[in-house]
Amino acid sequence: MTKPRPKTLLAMGRAVAKRLVTDDVRERLVAVADIDPDLVIDDFAGPAVAEALAGAEVLYTSWWCPPITHDVLDKAPGLRAVVHAAGSVKHHITEACWQRGILVSSAAAANAEPVAEYTLASILFANKRVLDIARLYREHRAPLELDVRFPGFGNYRRTVGIVGASRIGRRVIELLRPFELDVLVADPYLTDDLGVPHVELDELFERCDVISLHAPSLPETRHLVDAGRLARMRDGATLINTARGALVDQDALIAELARGRLYAVIDVTEPDLLPADSPLYDLPNVLLTPHIAGSLGGELPRIAHLAVDELARYAQGVPFLHGVEAEELARSA
Amino acid sequence: MTKPRPKTLLAMGRAVAKRLVTDDVRERLVAVADIDPDLVIDDFAGPAVAEALAGAEVLYTSWWCPPITHDVLDKAPGLRAVVHAAGSVKHHITEACWQRGILVSSAAAANAEPVAEYTLASILFANKRVLDIARLYREHRAPLELDVRFPGFGNYRRTVGIVGASRIGRRVIELLRPFELDVLVADPYLTDDLGVPHVELDELFERCDVISLHAPSLPETRHLVDAGRLARMRDGATLINTARGALVDQDALIAELARGRLYAVIDVTEPDLLPADSPLYDLPNVLLTPHIAGSLGGELPRIAHLAVDELARYAQGVPFLHGVEAEELARSA
Ligand SMILES: NC(=O)c1ccc[n+]([C@@H]2O[C@H](COP(=O)([O-])OP(=O)(O)OC[C@H]3O[C@@H](n4cnc5c(N)ncnc54)[C@H](O)[C@@H]3O)[C@@H](O)[C@H]2O)c1
Ligand SMILES: NC(=O)c1ccc[n+]([C@@H]2O[C@H](COP(=O)([O-])OP(=O)(O)OC[C@H]3O[C@@H](n4cnc5c(N)ncnc54)[C@H](O)[C@@H]3O)[C@@H](O)[C@H]2O)c1
Repeated sequence: MTKPRPKTLLAMGRAVAKRLVTDDVRERLVAVADIDPDLVIDDFAGPAVAEALAGAEVLYTSWWCPPITHDVLDKAPGLRAVVHAAGSVKHHITEACWQRGILVSSAAAANAEPVAEYTLASILFANKRVLDIARLYREHRAPLELDVRFPGFGNYRRTVGIVGASRIGRRVIELLRPFELDVLVADPYLTDDLGVPHVELDELFERCDVISLHAPSLPETRHLVDAGRLARMRDGATLINTARGALVDQDALIAELARGRLYAVIDVTEPDLLPADSPLYDLPNVLLTPHIAGSLGGELPRIAHLAVDELARYAQGVPFLHGVEAEELARSA
Repeated sequence: MTKPRPKTLLAMGRAVAKRLVTDDVRERLVAVADIDPDLVIDDFAGPAVAEALAGAEVLYTSWWCPPITHDVLDKAPGLRAVVHAAGSVKHHITEACWQRGILVSSAAAANAEPVAEYTLASILFANKRVLDIARLYREHRAPLELDVRFPGFGNYRRTVGIVGASRIGRRVIELLRPFELDVLVADPYLTDDLGVPHVELDELFERCDVISLHAPSLPETRHLVDAGRLARMRDGATLINTARGALVDQDALIAELARGRLYAVIDVTEPDLLPADSPLYDLPNVLLTPHIAGSLGGELPRIAHLAVDELARYAQGVPFLHGVEAEELARSA
């Protein structure tokens, strides 16, 4: 006898659901769960939602799922698990969920992939100064003295520093293996051997040509990159931030970039949408993107599928592959 | 008894030699060959050069080595091998070299590496529309409707087409393995199985989101990408050319790009330094670089080392690992 399919509800933003629940995903969802894939909850208030919650065993969530509070849990006495088809669960999984022993899974592992890809491409372009050369070529329309402007440039025997042995940081280290680059990692909690030297943060800042941030935003990581750390960076080095704006003292970074000594690739800022007069928009030595490194557009089905895999494990009584524990959230994204 | 170290001469541009012959390379050169690493020949005329040529058994060449003609060979009766610390040997290895049975080795395999890296980063950025989003963000300084502008964008289950199963093309295919992208290859001479579907060129142009050119410039590949092939490309697709400008009908490409339907990453053009009024400088949907994908700056020692390896094999009487044969030049770069 197979177990009955768990009663499951979709809870996320409607715009997200439209791109996340593709035909493929929908087909798999109805196969593993007792679910109405057309019912998408983006607000836990109201009588219709209360009725749905009353019978729910699993929530399949994503971005813009509202916080799952005591109130919500009171309306969902049968809720056993939340399967999150997105990265961090910090926005919607509250203390109440942990207290009630709700099982939680996250698709952060799959969401790590596009961020690692964005980072890898940024590293390869930064070492070779591709975007800077493109800009100079457009400006001068003449031969450029590249060896004078960018001594020793290129992707050979240069040093890349990874701050945070996170899911994304580890994936970047893996993706860097085919290249002749030296990689260093800094993470105060790292105990396993990632095959690359594990160094102190200050040393990493001094030794690297490219430094990429992959630590979470926590009280202890606020302004981890401050004026002092920026000053330690080598002339011509590049800072990549796909983590969170709070990790960087943005004013100090802008001041250092305005001097022209460093380069930056910035996907996350404080606030996330910069005011129109922010110098970051106009500095030529910056590649600035509006928080796009994570899963977007055609990349959403990847995380949706991982979450369906997790739902299927739950339905079969198998532990999650990507379960989240309350304790680890103090150190993770 | 070890064989005597072969009398070897450096022949290349002086500016190239300065960056190619690093202290490491110099040390290895004098260990394997009887060589004066301070004598760099960039012109085969003159009595001093004649004297050096008279005793030479090997030429260690690189960019800007002048053609090795009958005349030069007459002055170098003991010449047995040319070890080229650069890519194509077509510029300096003449018919005369083949006739006299000169052994030729090329470092094109090592020079493939940076081109493949540039291509990989370009593919990852193109699928995610990173540079286009950066430009739009700078322009609008407001939330962008990315899903409307770039439907289905991202690096998940998109199709990448490789034109030419060349050293570079094969390396790009290898570097693409960690990603969830479908890869197709087109090459009329390809007989081995590269683990990706081998298709006709027209089919490749119709099916791909990104198309990257890695075929050599030959009479048959001139304007391989013409108006017809461009018309076959999908809306929003990207053409990457790191091969040679001659492969693309540049006027047709400019016309198509001006319509805004396609994107391009262009490292090589006709001529290589574009006139100041070329629209390629100003089109927003183009990343234009001045022939930088190959080895430059700090990347030159990589090819220098490969050429020293080849020189060491010759000195020990072992066949080259990267020998070049006259016949293959009709199909290769
Ligand atoms: N740009 C985007 O679209 C996007 C998408 C996903 C994630 N992110 C961000 O990327 C970062 C990494 O996410 P993840 O899911 O890979 O993280 P994770 O939760 O898997 O790992 C966090 C890691 O950071 C380490 N860490 C904690 N404090 C540290 C410190 N002071 N210094 C160095 N390392 C420290 C922990 O040991 C742990 O290894 C986070 O900031 C996350 O918010 C951004
Ligand atoms: N941008 C740069 O700085 C840079 C640096 C190095 C090489 N290149 C260029 O990159 C390209 C590839 O160089 P490589 O050394 O890898 O080449 P290669 O000599 O190793 O291989 C050439 C390949 O092209 C294939 N080919 C021949 N005719 C073809 C056709 N009509 N259609 C498709 N494939 C065809 C051959 O079968 C062969 O596999 C060349 O054009 C070369 O000039 C550019």
